[in-house]
Amino acid sequence: MTGQTVRDTGEFGLIARLRDSLPAAVKTGPALTLGIGDDAAVWRPPAAAAVVVTTDSLVEGIHFRLDWTDWTSLGHKTLAVNLSDIAAMGAKPALATITLGLRGSERIDDLLQLYQGLGNFAARTGTLIAGGDIVASPQALTLHVTLLGAAAHGRMLTRSGAQPGDLIAVSGTLGASAAGLALLAMPPGDPARTATTADLLIAAHLRPEPRLALGELLLQHGASAAMDLSDGLLGDLPKLLDASDVAAEIEAGSLPVAAAVHALFPDRWRELALRGGEDYELLFTLPPAGFADLVAAASAIDTTVTAIGTILPREDTSPLITMRHPDGRIEAIDPGAFDHFV
Amino acid sequence: MTGQTVRDTGEFGLIARLRDSLPAAVKTGPALTLGIGDDAAVWRPPAAAAVVVTTDSLVEGIHFRLDWTDWTSLGHKTLAVNLSDIAAMGAKPALATITLGLRGSERIDDLLQLYQGLGNFAARTGTLIAGGDIVASPQALTLHVTLLGAAAHGRMLTRSGAQPGDLIAVSGTLGASAAGLALLAMPPGDPARTATTADLLIAAHLRPEPRLALGELLLQHGASAAMDLSDGLLGDLPKLLDASDVAAEIEAGSLPVAAAVHALFPDRWRELALRGGEDYELLFTLPPAGFADLVAAASAIDTTVTAIGTILPREDTSPLITMRHPDGRIEAIDPGAFDHFV
Repeated sequence: MTGQTVRDTGEFGLIARLRDSLPAAVKTGPALTLGIGDDAAVWRPPAAAAVVVTTDSLVEGIHFRLDWTDWTSLGHKTLAVNLSDIAAMGAKPALATITLGLRGSERIDDLLQLYQGLGNFAARTGTLIAGGDIVASPQALTLHVTLLGAAAHGRMLTRSGAQPGDLIAVSGTLGASAAGLALLAMPPGDPARTATTADLLIAAHLRPEPRLALGELLLQHGASAAMDLSDGLLGDLPKLLDASDVAAEIEAGSLPVAAAVHALFPDRWRELALRGGEDYELLFTLPPAGFADLVAAASAIDTTVTAIGTILPREDTSPLITMRHPDGRIEAIDPGAFDHFV
Repeated sequence: MTGQTVRDTGEFGLIARLRDSLPAAVKTGPALTLGIGDDAAVWRPPAAAAVVVTTDSLVEGIHFRLDWTDWTSLGHKTLAVNLSDIAAMGAKPALATITLGLRGSERIDDLLQLYQGLGNFAARTGTLIAGGDIVASPQALTLHVTLLGAAAHGRMLTRSGAQPGDLIAVSGTLGASAAGLALLAMPPGDPARTATTADLLIAAHLRPEPRLALGELLLQHGASAAMDLSDGLLGDLPKLLDASDVAAEIEAGSLPVAAAVHALFPDRWRELALRGGEDYELLFTLPPAGFADLVAAASAIDTTVTAIGTILPREDTSPLITMRHPDGRIEAIDPGAFDHFV
């Protein structure tokens, strides 16, 4: 059995194996009255909730490499990148559909590990697995998730509510995932790669932890706008500023950067923090009066939040983003997200 | 502009172009309070409705060839294969997310045509486009849709309610799509390819019309089980039989086959009707007493339905599917769906 591949089992055999491997709690329940196996699944959303819908894919060679990740982590991350969007809305995850694009040569045992990572994370976050699709994808393993969440009482966070005078803040630290990716790209013998802190950064890249509990707190504490950080601070902040029609000043000395990133990347830590992607932290704005209460509430769920700047009015003659350095110098920042095509 | 590609425009430029190209009615509205452009879309389902969720992908080289389809038809079909699953539940389409996996070399004008086919069909069927994702897919264009529908009063059709004595019926005709595909595979000068009826069959393959109105009628008329036909009658019927724990006898003389399929494939029409995929007709069961009323109601929406057999009790010692021929001979049928991997 160990060496069995998708081609040995076939599409329908594989679906049965994967379905059977999932924890019972994620494939059945009062909210999921028809699960995997019919033309469609049937979900009963909570009364009066708005439904939040997001979708995100991971493509081999673009978003991950099989020689850099284990299969369980890959399953975790496939769900995590989608959960992060739900967190950014202040909503609760509800159910996911999974589409696997497979070459056919994948080992069944590897795919079962993928589903173990995915299923365990789904169980921990209250996400139902409603079904999906398996298609042939001859050249690259493709993992595709659509995730539905529920926004209680129809209230949610968006990108468009930031007001001049609001603080700009982020959860956790910035750049750890990009630092982890840089470590994975180094030769195995590189001193940085073998540092005791390297595994922490690599874990931040392979198994990001979306800020679901914080998203709900932000909604309760009057955050005016929020989004998750997938394309780096300077890639994502402009999207929030455009949606809210405002500008921003960032305090260079305030950026929260993990000590390990400072230590292993003494020349690159600022670039990693500003432009490194895939942190899956929350970027948000809120009136300054509410910030101290939020910090305390976040601390109670073991989450740090750090104010990194201020929302400014938007003016055609001023840069969209400026950075104030500790010496008082103000620098216009060139924003920009990494684009897979350009 | 004509020759501009995805690589020229970039991911974010392309998203804006595609969003702008969609009809206003499919990207805004009272039910879609936050559309394309935030971390997630926000949908307000109808009160007391159950949410029906399905997902289906089309992969270049597996499900379509760009030299056999125009881009508008491809957009239509991408949505149609998902709408067909919603039809099979007796539900109404509500909203879709679209993920494009792109090489980067695609022409923007072609993708705008894809979105025209998709957007127009969405507008005609009341399907909102809530957003999606664009990812790099280096070797094959991949089109991925997740579709949500609403089942009024929480009632829907499933595969699992068929009872011994129920009639087995299908909408429309069988085998037209597979015949169209066979025609596309012929050299351009082949006599069958140039027959006046060939275009009709090719259209059935490229632009299937999901049976949304019929799905709702089936629910009203007491159908006991339903599914859509994507893997051919003998590929899909066993799934319904397994879900309902019953067996079936098919009347060979009752199979509805288009005259053009008979005429152009005199030696293969039965095989195309029984095993040809992608008809996107509905396969359903219902008590015989209700059939005449259903035929009349379906006729009023210009849809034919044809009884093709009877549900039998399941017995371990009998075949799952038998076929009764016009001469009275009864044949055990080898079921089986086409598997992309085996």
